[in-house]
Amino acid sequence: MHISTQRLDNYDAVDAYPTRLPDREAIKERRDPVLWSEWSEDAPISREEAEHYDKNGYLVRRDLFDADEIDCLVSTAQRLRDTDPAERPADFVTEPSSDEVRTVFRLDEHSPVFARLAADTRLAGVAEFLLNDRVYVHQSRLNYKPGFKGKEFYWHSDFETWHAEDGMPRMRAVSASVLLTDNSKLNGPLMLIPGSQNEFIACLGETPEDNHKSSLKAQEIGVPQPETIRRFAEDLGLDTATGPTGTVVFFDCNTLHGSNGNITPDPRSNAFFVFNAISNRPVDPFAAPKPRPAWLSNRDKIRPIEPIEGRIKAG
Amino acid sequence: MHISTQRLDNYDAVDAYPTRLPDREAIKERRDPVLWSEWSEDAPISREEAEHYDKNGYLVRRDLFDADEIDCLVSTAQRLRDTDPAERPADFVTEPSSDEVRTVFRLDEHSPVFARLAADTRLAGVAEFLLNDRVYVHQSRLNYKPGFKGKEFYWHSDFETWHAEDGMPRMRAVSASVLLTDNSKLNGPLMLIPGSQNEFIACLGETPEDNHKSSLKAQEIGVPQPETIRRFAEDLGLDTATGPTGTVVFFDCNTLHGSNGNITPDPRSNAFFVFNAISNRPVDPFAAPKPRPAWLSNRDKIRPIEPIEGRIKAG
Repeated sequence: MHISTQRLDNYDAVDAYPTRLPDREAIKERRDPVLWSEWSEDAPISREEAEHYDKNGYLVRRDLFDADEIDCLVSTAQRLRDTDPAERPADFVTEPSSDEVRTVFRLDEHSPVFARLAADTRLAGVAEFLLNDRVYVHQSRLNYKPGFKGKEFYWHSDFETWHAEDGMPRMRAVSASVLLTDNSKLNGPLMLIPGSQNEFIACLGETPEDNHKSSLKAQEIGVPQPETIRRFAEDLGLDTATGPTGTVVFFDCNTLHGSNGNITPDPRSNAFFVFNAISNRPVDPFAAPKPRPAWLSNRDKIRPIEPIEGRIKAG
Repeated sequence: MHISTQRLDNYDAVDAYPTRLPDREAIKERRDPVLWSEWSEDAPISREEAEHYDKNGYLVRRDLFDADEIDCLVSTAQRLRDTDPAERPADFVTEPSSDEVRTVFRLDEHSPVFARLAADTRLAGVAEFLLNDRVYVHQSRLNYKPGFKGKEFYWHSDFETWHAEDGMPRMRAVSASVLLTDNSKLNGPLMLIPGSQNEFIACLGETPEDNHKSSLKAQEIGVPQPETIRRFAEDLGLDTATGPTGTVVFFDCNTLHGSNGNITPDPRSNAFFVFNAISNRPVDPFAAPKPRPAWLSNRDKIRPIEPIEGRIKAG
């Protein structure tokens, strides 16, 4: 597979996507490709998959891991969540109303197994193809949405936050979510608006200091207005990324997504990796006083991944 | 159709379903039939439908109303919700965090159209068959769960509350929910545990004074323990009652149900009628200091319905 690390003119010299506007929301056309590579026979996904990703801004891939690999990932995640409350680092985030771990950030630093997963050709290799560049992990996390009381997460574009608060210049990043539980339409699955990645919603409202302290529990700044979401959903529809444990969902950094709360007994969990193109490393934030902490936005340990073939094993 | 108004021995002389226990939850077998009639050729539902209701505790019926009837119901509901805030009676309940009407109680008293709907053979006539008795409206309401911020409603049995707080003696009541919006798996549909109607979960916790003032926004007393819900859902499964506008969902008073929150743009609305057997009229509450108000629990205007044939029309 050929990787170009090609950069567009004036790549990060100007703010390509102004946002956090003081007086109004604005919608601008995307200035970057969604699929950065030309598909060829040696690509790690099929031509149909590449076209689906380019058109819709996401791709659901199943049956990539065998049962032993899935067992290894699930049990490793459980051990991380079982970390004694007294010993939890600052990047373990709990539910608003309980002591249960909802998110473990810097997942690849807390766990060799998940570091190995991130580097797998089935993840990093696909990300290299989608972005046509070498990639590094901008953010990684283990998400856990418990049964009975899993909270919703409102519609948003990840790129809007990464651009405004982390200084990510352009739309050349992709998230990969590896499902660690079965995910149905009823237990708070990822919902996406297909095609929404093609427009940038410059959000209303200036960024408060330390916005991440509240936005991780319930995002209020950097989200589109409800009427905009309504129009996008009416024009483009709504899809869900569901599947059995081990399913991988790739979605472009600018695809609008969210998830409902969950009163069913079934929890939802996934391992989440943001792959950014090495050519797209962060600069100063475009709409925030200072960058978010390193556990949310990697800017000091930018190491291109060497994709690894083969099966994932514990130890 | 033959209606018997047959009563069981010692029908309301004793508390058949003690609940709100001070020290523990308890699970008891149901002491009443689910389907009170024998099916025959002149029944208003098919044999298969009757068997489905008896086995699962609910029944979804579609295509009962024509387009003009549905338009009439939807526009009547919208007018009710548009009532000026200053003129809203006490039985209009708003969202916890906004001024939007979430529920209109005593729907049949606020609207001749909805009173006519309640009396329709497609509702009251079916209820008479299921309960093998003449029926009256114990409670009626218009429910509206908005898009974007619709809140969840936790798992519960309605009968538990009606018995404890309203003095409904036995399980001889059925709810009919008429969908006034399309309802998919994603916009907070009614979820039910099939077969759960056959066991009574006597709930932990004594009833506080004026419990209904908080329980309508988020129920905390009179709900099963999460581990009990988990066991029921594992043993019996989980179903959703979805369908296009005009779909009618009948469910037994003791079927466990709940609904997820909803961040999609699509609201969920329904007209909801509780039909109680005339032989099952309320006595003193079994586990509360005094009955709930009349807008929640009709005990003074108990009039058996004369089911009406024909199409529903405005004015």
